Amino acid sequence: MKNGIIRLNPFPTIISHASVVGNKEHRGPLGPRFDFHDESDRFGQKTWEDSEAEMQRIALNLALKKAGIRTDGLNALFAGDLINQCTSSNYGLLSLPVPQIGLYGACSTSAEGLIVASLYLNAADADVVGVVTSSHNCSAERQFRYPVEYGGQRTPTSQWTVTGAAAFLLGTGEGAYITEMMPGISVDRGITDAANMGAAMAPAAYHTLIRYFRESGHSPSDFDGIFTGDLGYEGHTILLDAMKEAGYDLRGHCHDCGLLIYDKEKQDVHAGGSGCGCSASVLSAYLLPMLENGILHDILFLATGALMSPMSVQQGHSIPGIAHLVRITKEKPL
Amino acid sequence: MKNGIIRLNPFPTIISHASVVGNKEHRGPLGPRFDFHDESDRFGQKTWEDSEAEMQRIALNLALKKAGIRTDGLNALFAGDLINQCTSSNYGLLSLPVPQIGLYGACSTSAEGLIVASLYLNAADADVVGVVTSSHNCSAERQFRYPVEYGGQRTPTSQWTVTGAAAFLLGTGEGAYITEMMPGISVDRGITDAANMGAAMAPAAYHTLIRYFRESGHSPSDFDGIFTGDLGYEGHTILLDAMKEAGYDLRGHCHDCGLLIYDKEKQDVHAGGSGCGCSASVLSAYLLPMLENGILHDILFLATGALMSPMSVQQGHSIPGIAHLVRITKEKPL
Repeated sequence: MKNGIIRLNPFPTIISHASVVGNKEHRGPLGPRFDFHDESDRFGQKTWEDSEAEMQRIALNLALKKAGIRTDGLNALFAGDLINQCTSSNYGLLSLPVPQIGLYGACSTSAEGLIVASLYLNAADADVVGVVTSSHNCSAERQFRYPVEYGGQRTPTSQWTVTGAAAFLLGTGEGAYITEMMPGISVDRGITDAANMGAAMAPAAYHTLIRYFRESGHSPSDFDGIFTGDLGYEGHTILLDAMKEAGYDLRGHCHDCGLLIYDKEKQDVHAGGSGCGCSASVLSAYLLPMLENGILHDILFLATGALMSPMSVQQGHSIPGIAHLVRITKEKPL
Repeated sequence: MKNGIIRLNPFPTIISHASVVGNKEHRGPLGPRFDFHDESDRFGQKTWEDSEAEMQRIALNLALKKAGIRTDGLNALFAGDLINQCTSSNYGLLSLPVPQIGLYGACSTSAEGLIVASLYLNAADADVVGVVTSSHNCSAERQFRYPVEYGGQRTPTSQWTVTGAAAFLLGTGEGAYITEMMPGISVDRGITDAANMGAAMAPAAYHTLIRYFRESGHSPSDFDGIFTGDLGYEGHTILLDAMKEAGYDLRGHCHDCGLLIYDKEKQDVHAGGSGCGCSASVLSAYLLPMLENGILHDILFLATGALMSPMSVQQGHSIPGIAHLVRITKEKPL
């Protein structure tokens, strides 16, 4: 099926990666695992947009440093974020003399970037390509809802935009393998509440997972884990219920990056984390190290995005969701 | 050079394409060549964002119709626009059950899309993939400057955002060949005036062209034409001057889609056209038919983008530009 699972030859590998987070994320359960954090969330900058841009720069520089690769060893960069006209990506990575492809996939950008960068690596016969994405609580809240200083009351289903960024370098050296990829199809089930993105994105996650299992013949138990992007409590519950009705029991197999990154009891984040930086920083700080150390061997990484804009919500449109799937394995598949 | 010119095997072909424009564009010199226009600029919708989304839908449907391909024959869609969070693309193409990759490249989206879609076609072994982009004068002016109703005075260097959309289907059948591609590197020369995007983008066009000529060994006279995206009078003049200083005489070889689409004498557009829909609709309505008819044989298409956001301009940042290059030929290269 030509619009289904993509397998590349040779398999791209994630040769290096790094994560950068803010204060709240550092105080969460994954705190010590992130490569860099700033207690002030400002990263030395005067505006939140510049802070987010700086997080992208730091993440990419750390990933390059870990791999011992200089900027001029990068053949292309794929980047995107939540802010209007991808401000953070364009300003964060601007100074690099590297060909750049701008992406917009909302919170699904991490997986979208891994897919497009893998195709570039393969088709353009590149050595190393980079994927960078980010979100910042203060820039995103101002963009999509209210400035944080306004102190707006948050509803129970609302999620907390993660202050986080991650960079991934793809190549053909040592690292976890990108074994299969499946770009998502957008799904809109009529959710109009921008404070309930989990419900808007869960049907897209369902849609991609069902397509993947049907085409691959795999079942959830074939994987060490299925890690969704940022469905939060609301979306995670909807996904598990819907998958069960379709005959797939995900309990114990499916985890959500938006639930892993914060402590539900101690940190007041309502329905969990969200934002491009959520799945990206959890993949870099938590999932990839477990694959590299052999704690995990074979996972499905499914970043989800809510494709609304503040204007589309104001104009009464419902929110389309999308979920891009990447299968990542420790061992090279046969 | 791994971050330079990309050549694919087999060469992708543009098997079908279509353009949709508004009233002003239809009254311009290329007017009769566009496939579809709406005198009201509204395309049957209540908001300008919905009008722009509808233009994308119409352009894609026309391109599919021309090729005799049904929606389920499309393996993937690549789309982007100027509006916050790519509203027009997400809502315009939402209803299609096709895997979708969101792009943000400002006015360079047409060439960025052709590049990424070509790589996807090649690496994912797809049959047909689509690229769609658009801009609408009323949605873009409100987004980036003032609502049109406000009647703000425009400066001489300001450009007129084209109300236009185009869709391109890539495959391996009959059509013009995408022979070479070169993704752009962002360049910022300190321009802070959002009403002078030509000056912000011209250095990026210069940068990509110089890289291309140096790596390929070609000179401007090797091509039937070099068509830049939307530099307008200001940017076009800067590009020609800078290229001349570098030893490349572009006079008579270089044309700008922002200058081709409007009549400078009869239509009050100040420095010319701009917007994602500018280079896209001119490529579909004017350049590709001339390649298909043998009037042109070998062109460089260089879509340029100004990667600012209204917020980055308000925060005092200068405007980075980017220019992605696609070489398109009538004959299959040896």
